[in-house]
Amino acid sequence: MSDRPARTEEEVLDAIERRRRRPVRKLLEDRITLSHGAGGKATHTLVEALFLAELRNPLLEAMGDSAVFEAGAGGPRLAFSTDSYVVSPLFFPGGDIGELAVNGTVNDLAMSGARPLYLSAGFIIEEGFAIADLQRVVASMGAAAREAGVTIVTGDTKVVERGKADGLYINTAGVGVMERELDLSPATVRAGDRVLVSGTLGDHGIAVMVARGNLGIEVDLESDTAALAGLAAHLLDAVGDGVRCLRDPTRGGLATVLAELALETELSIMIDEPALPIVPAVHGACEILGLYPLYIANEGKLAAIVAPEATDAALAALRAHPLGQDAAVVAEVRPDPPGLVLLETSIGGSRVVDMLAGDPLPRIC
Amino acid sequence: MSDRPARTEEEVLDAIERRRRRPVRKLLEDRITLSHGAGGKATHTLVEALFLAELRNPLLEAMGDSAVFEAGAGGPRLAFSTDSYVVSPLFFPGGDIGELAVNGTVNDLAMSGARPLYLSAGFIIEEGFAIADLQRVVASMGAAAREAGVTIVTGDTKVVERGKADGLYINTAGVGVMERELDLSPATVRAGDRVLVSGTLGDHGIAVMVARGNLGIEVDLESDTAALAGLAAHLLDAVGDGVRCLRDPTRGGLATVLAELALETELSIMIDEPALPIVPAVHGACEILGLYPLYIANEGKLAAIVAPEATDAALAALRAHPLGQDAAVVAEVRPDPPGLVLLETSIGGSRVVDMLAGDPLPRIC
Repeated sequence: MSDRPARTEEEVLDAIERRRRRPVRKLLEDRITLSHGAGGKATHTLVEALFLAELRNPLLEAMGDSAVFEAGAGGPRLAFSTDSYVVSPLFFPGGDIGELAVNGTVNDLAMSGARPLYLSAGFIIEEGFAIADLQRVVASMGAAAREAGVTIVTGDTKVVERGKADGLYINTAGVGVMERELDLSPATVRAGDRVLVSGTLGDHGIAVMVARGNLGIEVDLESDTAALAGLAAHLLDAVGDGVRCLRDPTRGGLATVLAELALETELSIMIDEPALPIVPAVHGACEILGLYPLYIANEGKLAAIVAPEATDAALAALRAHPLGQDAAVVAEVRPDPPGLVLLETSIGGSRVVDMLAGDPLPRIC
Repeated sequence: MSDRPARTEEEVLDAIERRRRRPVRKLLEDRITLSHGAGGKATHTLVEALFLAELRNPLLEAMGDSAVFEAGAGGPRLAFSTDSYVVSPLFFPGGDIGELAVNGTVNDLAMSGARPLYLSAGFIIEEGFAIADLQRVVASMGAAAREAGVTIVTGDTKVVERGKADGLYINTAGVGVMERELDLSPATVRAGDRVLVSGTLGDHGIAVMVARGNLGIEVDLESDTAALAGLAAHLLDAVGDGVRCLRDPTRGGLATVLAELALETELSIMIDEPALPIVPAVHGACEILGLYPLYIANEGKLAAIVAPEATDAALAALRAHPLGQDAAVVAEVRPDPPGLVLLETSIGGSRVVDMLAGDPLPRIC
């Protein structure tokens, strides 16, 4: 199918203008809480009321997973993204902080439609950290980078005194190239569009949480950390401009991603609860812990908003890829009530799903 | 003057091959020490024996202040760099962590000859950190970005529990565009070249150290944190390919920068001690603390290695810029003894100057 052309500058400015007109949530606290890092409501308030307010510029205000810009006059469009990783424990079933740090930034670039190319890596290490563990983490980054087809080209190492970090924190930033004319953006979402997820929800968050060993539960579950650039490219190759927008539901989970989208598009999103793919281990752990899987992070799943007529092709494309075998259509975009996400439960009722509030699972990425 | 053409791929591979043939220093420790973050000998050993060994690729192995690559086929050459900032205290005379985080990455890009364009910002915040302080830091980043002509386009916020950080750590990564054909690289350095510094040495390190208030000394001194992109461009405009290579002497100071260069070029560098511009406050503090100013960080000074015939023009160009008024010619590149830096003292003797060992000044950036 033909690619939908990139948004005009006017459309981009219009979207930013709409965001600016929305009432900015106020920071009510005097001090940072764990919620400010959870990716949910408090994070969004902090970003809007502080970071955007101080650093205001159109690229930042676009608030995509990556910033997209032209590299020099007439150069290719590039995507640029960053994430810091503070996951605890550093090693968990299915992965470690190094693999996560590569895949997470690769995925942010991929969700913008870019082909990830180059990563930077910044290490903040606590004095006394075992060099053998550092070696294991860096080896894991190397393997993840090769797997994702990216190169770690520049880095930095800082060491802080004992008690001033928790072993190891890693920041990665990434540069990718936009090889498609396609503009993946919430601005293109329309009522009638469908929301697909590429697989089971909440695996990463619960796997890390259980790995901490302080919950008194054991489950047979691995993190789903994976690089999604291949899956995203496969989907875009198959469906082209039938794809409106891609997001990876990490911190805050699918609920937060959809709540942001509803707000941004001034549309409604109705989630079909029985359609949500969730493995029994995640269901069970969530029930014991009083959590809702829709708020639990993945690190190797994507959510795709696709045009109604492209839904079947998109689902088939996702399922044909090794990382998308459990893909499902889980929600529909509707005109009303604008800005809200609703959940249609298996017993027939419906309720509003807001962004994550608080932080039930600190430091899962 | 005409620009010197960029190195051929063959020359770059040749330089990497030479580096590979050098015996790799071994990591003798089992655990990370503060020295591994000091930017001196231990940092270099860690980078060579662990990071390069695990992540081996030509861009990383070039070990410049930035990685330089083409953005897509036929696209412009870009520079990409990252640094984390863990300075303590967060606010110090002449600057704060926010300003430092912008200027530091801007300077890494500028030292590669790039025009810095876009920055990312990743925040790791300790639970309980005052939002007013965060606001002050972010405002300072905004001001520094405007001053340096760069835009902060993407970011990330993580929060860790009380006692798992020290208030605030910031990572910035930056993308710049190489608008000149010039290749600034140690491979172009020749015997007879001169080393210039753009101003007084050690101001930043001593200002931060004293600001901690635990030394029992008071000095009237501010950090020199500044964006060097304007100064670098001014110098390159004036002297073109008379400039071989630029470095900003941050962690490890000028001594470490020159020791790296001597090693990389297999040439010798003779420092003229009486020519080193050092303010009395830095001299005095260093004497009391038993430190040598050549190892103390700057955050707003550059070292330029220039061809002998370009020395006068380079010095004049630096001095004509507000950030280069105290510029001086401080060293000369010589053929022997290869790989070593010597210091010619004011009393006539000479001694070997090695990279920084240990970490007399932890967390000054």
